[in-house]
Amino acid sequence: MSGIREECGIFGIRTAEKKPLAHLAAAGLTALQHRGQEAAGIAVNEDRNIRYHKGLGLVHEVFSDERLDALGGGTIAVGHVRYSTSGANTAANAQPMVVRHVKGQLAVCHNGNLTNSYELRRQLELNGCIFHTTSDTEVISYLITRKRLETDSIEEAVRLALQEIRGAFSLILMSPAKLIACRDRYGIRPLCLGETAEGDTVLASESCALDAVGAKLIRELDPGEMVVVEGTGIRSLRCFPAHGREALCVFEYIYFARPDSVIRGQSVHEARKQAGAYLAMDHPVSADVVIGVPDSGLDAAVGFAEASGIPYGIGLIKNKYIGRTFIAPTQDARDHMVRLKLNAVASAVRDRRVVLIDDSIVRGTTSSYIVSLIREAGAREVHLRISSPPFLHPCYYGTDVDSSKSLIACGHSVEDVARMTGADSLAFLSVERARSLCPGVGENTYCAACFDGDYPEKPPEVAEKDRFETTWS
Amino acid sequence: MSGIREECGIFGIRTAEKKPLAHLAAAGLTALQHRGQEAAGIAVNEDRNIRYHKGLGLVHEVFSDERLDALGGGTIAVGHVRYSTSGANTAANAQPMVVRHVKGQLAVCHNGNLTNSYELRRQLELNGCIFHTTSDTEVISYLITRKRLETDSIEEAVRLALQEIRGAFSLILMSPAKLIACRDRYGIRPLCLGETAEGDTVLASESCALDAVGAKLIRELDPGEMVVVEGTGIRSLRCFPAHGREALCVFEYIYFARPDSVIRGQSVHEARKQAGAYLAMDHPVSADVVIGVPDSGLDAAVGFAEASGIPYGIGLIKNKYIGRTFIAPTQDARDHMVRLKLNAVASAVRDRRVVLIDDSIVRGTTSSYIVSLIREAGAREVHLRISSPPFLHPCYYGTDVDSSKSLIACGHSVEDVARMTGADSLAFLSVERARSLCPGVGENTYCAACFDGDYPEKPPEVAEKDRFETTWS
Amino acid sequence: MSGIREECGIFGIRTAEKKPLAHLAAAGLTALQHRGQEAAGIAVNEDRNIRYHKGLGLVHEVFSDERLDALGGGTIAVGHVRYSTSGANTAANAQPMVVRHVKGQLAVCHNGNLTNSYELRRQLELNGCIFHTTSDTEVISYLITRKRLETDSIEEAVRLALQEIRGAFSLILMSPAKLIACRDRYGIRPLCLGETAEGDTVLASESCALDAVGAKLIRELDPGEMVVVEGTGIRSLRCFPAHGREALCVFEYIYFARPDSVIRGQSVHEARKQAGAYLAMDHPVSADVVIGVPDSGLDAAVGFAEASGIPYGIGLIKNKYIGRTFIAPTQDARDHMVRLKLNAVASAVRDRRVVLIDDSIVRGTTSSYIVSLIREAGAREVHLRISSPPFLHPCYYGTDVDSSKSLIACGHSVEDVARMTGADSLAFLSVERARSLCPGVGENTYCAACFDGDYPEKPPEVAEKDRFETTWS
Amino acid sequence: MSGIREECGIFGIRTAEKKPLAHLAAAGLTALQHRGQEAAGIAVNEDRNIRYHKGLGLVHEVFSDERLDALGGGTIAVGHVRYSTSGANTAANAQPMVVRHVKGQLAVCHNGNLTNSYELRRQLELNGCIFHTTSDTEVISYLITRKRLETDSIEEAVRLALQEIRGAFSLILMSPAKLIACRDRYGIRPLCLGETAEGDTVLASESCALDAVGAKLIRELDPGEMVVVEGTGIRSLRCFPAHGREALCVFEYIYFARPDSVIRGQSVHEARKQAGAYLAMDHPVSADVVIGVPDSGLDAAVGFAEASGIPYGIGLIKNKYIGRTFIAPTQDARDHMVRLKLNAVASAVRDRRVVLIDDSIVRGTTSSYIVSLIREAGAREVHLRISSPPFLHPCYYGTDVDSSKSLIACGHSVEDVARMTGADSLAFLSVERARSLCPGVGENTYCAACFDGDYPEKPPEVAEKDRFETTWS
Repeated sequence: MSGIREECGIFGIRTAEKKPLAHLAAAGLTALQHRGQEAAGIAVNEDRNIRYHKGLGLVHEVFSDERLDALGGGTIAVGHVRYSTSGANTAANAQPMVVRHVKGQLAVCHNGNLTNSYELRRQLELNGCIFHTTSDTEVISYLITRKRLETDSIEEAVRLALQEIRGAFSLILMSPAKLIACRDRYGIRPLCLGETAEGDTVLASESCALDAVGAKLIRELDPGEMVVVEGTGIRSLRCFPAHGREALCVFEYIYFARPDSVIRGQSVHEARKQAGAYLAMDHPVSADVVIGVPDSGLDAAVGFAEASGIPYGIGLIKNKYIGRTFIAPTQDARDHMVRLKLNAVASAVRDRRVVLIDDSIVRGTTSSYIVSLIREAGAREVHLRISSPPFLHPCYYGTDVDSSKSLIACGHSVEDVARMTGADSLAFLSVERARSLCPGVGENTYCAACFDGDYPEKPPEVAEKDRFETTWS
Repeated sequence: MSGIREECGIFGIRTAEKKPLAHLAAAGLTALQHRGQEAAGIAVNEDRNIRYHKGLGLVHEVFSDERLDALGGGTIAVGHVRYSTSGANTAANAQPMVVRHVKGQLAVCHNGNLTNSYELRRQLELNGCIFHTTSDTEVISYLITRKRLETDSIEEAVRLALQEIRGAFSLILMSPAKLIACRDRYGIRPLCLGETAEGDTVLASESCALDAVGAKLIRELDPGEMVVVEGTGIRSLRCFPAHGREALCVFEYIYFARPDSVIRGQSVHEARKQAGAYLAMDHPVSADVVIGVPDSGLDAAVGFAEASGIPYGIGLIKNKYIGRTFIAPTQDARDHMVRLKLNAVASAVRDRRVVLIDDSIVRGTTSSYIVSLIREAGAREVHLRISSPPFLHPCYYGTDVDSSKSLIACGHSVEDVARMTGADSLAFLSVERARSLCPGVGENTYCAACFDGDYPEKPPEVAEKDRFETTWS
Repeated sequence: MSGIREECGIFGIRTAEKKPLAHLAAAGLTALQHRGQEAAGIAVNEDRNIRYHKGLGLVHEVFSDERLDALGGGTIAVGHVRYSTSGANTAANAQPMVVRHVKGQLAVCHNGNLTNSYELRRQLELNGCIFHTTSDTEVISYLITRKRLETDSIEEAVRLALQEIRGAFSLILMSPAKLIACRDRYGIRPLCLGETAEGDTVLASESCALDAVGAKLIRELDPGEMVVVEGTGIRSLRCFPAHGREALCVFEYIYFARPDSVIRGQSVHEARKQAGAYLAMDHPVSADVVIGVPDSGLDAAVGFAEASGIPYGIGLIKNKYIGRTFIAPTQDARDHMVRLKLNAVASAVRDRRVVLIDDSIVRGTTSSYIVSLIREAGAREVHLRISSPPFLHPCYYGTDVDSSKSLIACGHSVEDVARMTGADSLAFLSVERARSLCPGVGENTYCAACFDGDYPEKPPEVAEKDRFETTWS
Repeated sequence: MSGIREECGIFGIRTAEKKPLAHLAAAGLTALQHRGQEAAGIAVNEDRNIRYHKGLGLVHEVFSDERLDALGGGTIAVGHVRYSTSGANTAANAQPMVVRHVKGQLAVCHNGNLTNSYELRRQLELNGCIFHTTSDTEVISYLITRKRLETDSIEEAVRLALQEIRGAFSLILMSPAKLIACRDRYGIRPLCLGETAEGDTVLASESCALDAVGAKLIRELDPGEMVVVEGTGIRSLRCFPAHGREALCVFEYIYFARPDSVIRGQSVHEARKQAGAYLAMDHPVSADVVIGVPDSGLDAAVGFAEASGIPYGIGLIKNKYIGRTFIAPTQDARDHMVRLKLNAVASAVRDRRVVLIDDSIVRGTTSSYIVSLIREAGAREVHLRISSPPFLHPCYYGTDVDSSKSLIACGHSVEDVARMTGADSLAFLSVERARSLCPGVGENTYCAACFDGDYPEKPPEVAEKDRFETTWS
């Protein structure tokens, strides 16, 4: 129900023997499906070529078993699930981006957002480059290709290309012979490395995708690290010189990642419970029941209940069968459809003072609707607690919080927002609390720019999401 | 994850003015989708005819907006979602069953299972009847048609026909002019009546479908009651003489119904919480965390936690993006797929003594898998508590617990079953506790035959689910 | 381009050994596709059951290879291609109609039209029968089922049932053990019998379907004959007493059948050439080129050219890639679409006197369009010759010429029609010539009622094609 | 039935006012569908952008009415139907190729084949270009883009780019503001210009596509000519200096073009009739009937019949309902399928001496099958006459006769080939006759290299059709 859309999930695998890797990639991508539901794609090597298939839809919609079979056996596969943070939602923009260059083929999977892609693209165009898509990934592909002309190894070409890009990126790419992964200098987007019992190497945005293919988490990639997986094993290289600042997106803990994933050794579920506990400590309220907004508010609700001693309840039921394309023809029907998607459990809230926990407030419309749903079901009071700080600044690193205009917290006090949502009281997690969700890791190792405006990388000059959609002749 | 499959959901609506009722019916059926995911259908009246569409799949798969528009405006609509409890899963068996007889057309939606359909069908066949389907609903349609020859009103024909059938049934049916609903003499399957703000009459298996179309619950139909909705309003008739025994399926509270539905004035969510609380009282255990199996074990887990004082935790994550048709090609991949569907949150269970709450154990394989998942995630102890009594007897009234052979609790002691699932301890809800989940309603007003063998209706002589699939020339 | 729509094609096969018969049936039905393009279906026996699949569309659209494989191996298969002559164009009305009765299963394929189905259906309904479809075939199925109660053999039940029906019918039906075919007492619709090199028996509407599965034509069924194919071979029975009148639909020669089929020993192609030759003899004209309207006017054009000595030319090109569902949004675009479908070869007609041969004129709009197309391409004169007599009477036997209102030849003289089509002259084949297209067969052995009103069977009292679509409650 | 596959069809339109041009483009492309059935695409301008849609399949399969509507209104549209002569048959290779470059967007439609694309592509790759497809069209797009950097007008960029390419090409391309068409220096592939009654400009491979959208043929483009259509009207430019050699592909007359098209003022139908007449004069035979192989042998058969005085007959029936993807599972079934596709009319050939006319022999298997079909139908003699010379040399200009290895005429005498096909006699059209199918145009204005090896352009050094499919890392 949140207004923040998730971004992208990436996956890679390398095995010693040829296997039907597309099936494993599909399992891994399905575990990452929460990070992007608009397109999915898988590429598999085949001798000196790369086969691929991609399309719009969920992994299981894009990939029938026949489609997976058709990708054949291979030793390297990469895959991508996309929610478009840059570029329009068209099939052409789906990933992996598979291109042919002078030394062969390359498949690129990208999670993140470049802050200097406009300038890079402009420069490439002035050199006679043509673009088939509007995505950053084609810019990255070009840069790698051009560096490939100057060097003999694909990993060195990647390393050189990365020097030129700014912003947030976790990349998994493959040539027909090598699987390569790297992370931007601040480590804004997550990326982890695992191994199966048979010794296969697996790379994925989150550890839950390792679980899905039977791999164990070994470690996360360091900021600025590149990993090359080929015949002789796994090599680690540094793409960027050490600079002392890490900046993991704190919203990965709060919203993006799956509760069963582990990031920096901290369970995402525990981080969310901790956020709920902080809310209970910092913004206590006298109430009868704690209700989480499914699904992403549930963990924090458990934490709030445990810390406050107020009983945890189930007060909202989400219909899991709602089709994504089922659109009602009239306003009246549309109102019913919202009720269809989320309904209150009247007996759980009637005549009670309810603490309602959600992960964020973006435009405020969803929160307002849920508060009224709880009230209509008979709640005496509704106290809204948000397990993240207020959004005050646009994000340039791969989420779609890209304009401060639509953020309800901009230009409104907390009291104003409380009134607009209809809640009896409202409180947000503080930025400091958000920065300390992972024990033992310094507060300064996060990017919380959407909350505090402290950007690790200079924001782009031209940042509209569809900046390449409108052009001229 | 349960091995008990849900049965069917039925829906009907009548309005004073012509409206695009198919859209409302689709909303109502989507709210009932948890009762059947294999087929869906909607019929709408059009002057003296009935238009309909039905097919295999979820409501939003069978009905595009164009399909709904094509059903046009009407004053009466009925709809059905099916999980096949009798008859094979073929498109021909989807409902509503729309037939033409000497006085016009009839659309029939059925939730339940007849216990004498074999005998009735045989007799009809010996009278020269032909069958296009293998479903009980065609038998009912024939009986109504034949009685219609002897009487002038469709409701009287229905009433006469119902005298001949035995078993569990809630029916919603329509002629082009009337909307009719009735419930078997024991009231085994639920059926409720509601009204919208505009005065439209709505009938549905559960009250959550009333919410979905903006209707308020008025009351449930009595056992043996028939309701006729036509021009002059709503009339109530008795189909059967009073006999003093009610027998609502107790498993509606435990598993079938949605938590936000209300049956007999009792919230389903509260009934499940109560079941959890009873388990905590009757089968206490020293533990650190209470974990529910999503989604149907969560309510009871909240109840257990509250009654025992042991903290409620989130220890299992269900992947909501798993496609129903995504089938893995190898055993190895199949194992991964299970993990894909349900994963443990290690941090929530590691080094802890876990109380694991599920709604039922059928064959034991799922329970065994979940216990091992929790153990592998590091739990020190796993105490399994089941919010229903052990299944010991087949159900003949519309669920697919139809053979005692596959029920793990038959012929095994609770200790045996505990060992087979790998749990450190195991306890079931007692039958008495199950019978008292709804306050103020007598214990003897339930059917709990699957637990105690006390059948309100004589079991059928030929009961194989596909008994009409194999025939001879 | 003709306004007369084709009817239905039926096919049956029986082999000694189990084979994947659905593939052979699909081949046979594809050869009969010209007889009906709206729906297709195939049934195959499987021990004592019958499996089937049917749907809307062309044979290759309804039957993927997977669908054919899924029908499995069998020893008997029947199939049907439909153009709806009775009953709406819905999936429910597709054939074979597969029903279950007291003695087992039955699959029925029907080509033709009953003239007393309304009365029969009414009578069945008054006996409590329900109908799922609006097609005559369900009436036939009921009659057979009811007779089956009185007799021990399916063939005797069919024979008794046929006594009650009037009109035109060729039937192919199967029980799980027997393949049965029969023809109405006048032999209005064709039906032939063939044998493959391996000794398999094949039945089909036309001999071109025998060619398609590698079978040789043995003979046609006699009017009123029934053929039963089972373990011990082929038996022939008489369904009706001899009565001395045959009445093959003469329009099978003129339009329905495929040119490479043979009926009554006469090649359809030769019959059409003969029609063209008669036109040249009876209605000569001084001209430079003979042009046939593709595809059904080409054979007669060759005959006209040969008999008249005027050169045969190719003056019209039909676009074979036009999709059947490609509908233009504007009148302007619709006009283009017609041109897309049929275009003139200007060089073949420019400055020439053209004899234009078509098989029939129904409403006159198509003829008028083609004459103007030829003129715009530069023809000096256009002389229209029609290889059939004028339609003056409705057909009740399975074509859709069912109302005299829309027939241009009703109430208009030949001169009027010529003027309305824009042709310089117009002539039709005489009824006598039509009746003598097959050498050595008497003129009185045809049904030419659509031309001369001499109906072999009494026309029905209620004959609207959709007479069962509108009913009451 | 021919073994030569057709190539590509291209279409463009420009109107003064915004219109739903995609519908008109779809009509034009459907008229050109015989030139390519594997993929289709349409692009329409929208202010300063270009919208497009493309996919695998026939025009009416790729473009539903909704899809056409979604392309919106515009003033310029281009379209393409593809049979892959270069590059694999994948969706990525479908056209128009729509790319973004520094000055905006460009959509390119290409019919033909470059002879130096390998070298050009290699050079581009060495400059850091990446390729998303394996088609020549991406090479052309790059060349134009790079020239666009050096010049201010798109037409000058195209002109400069064309200086670098060799081979056969007719191009239609659009920027959001201009519609541009050009033809290679020899005019190997056809391209014509027309105008509608409303003054809209239309460009198409063949004149039949002008007819389909209601446009009149004005003229063909000259070899080496470029036409630019924009606000102020139509301008003609020369791309290449005059060199005195034209080389229209003679096989356009013999096989590729539609009979109702006009090329160089000569009707394609008449050219084919003329080929048949030449065969009758040069290779006379005593026979009873002349039979053409449908559809492309029919025109020549009419010409042979007229010139020889032997009657024209219809001896082969092609099933127009065969689905392109309907594949038989067994050899036996496959044999039937061929029979399904083409059947003999026995009465037309039985006991006769048959002249059989086909347009070409490639591998000989189809001819051999058809000769045997005619013989089995009872023909006494079969004399095969081919309305083209024997293929002896590969074609590098856009057909798929790209290896002499599979050509039956290479290394076999005419007598050998006759024996291999089973014909009693065999004769081909002479090269001189082929070169004189268009009256008043010199023999030396054709490319007949596939017959005589006289290539207007140097053959490529690397010519395998899929030369870019296999690459290395």
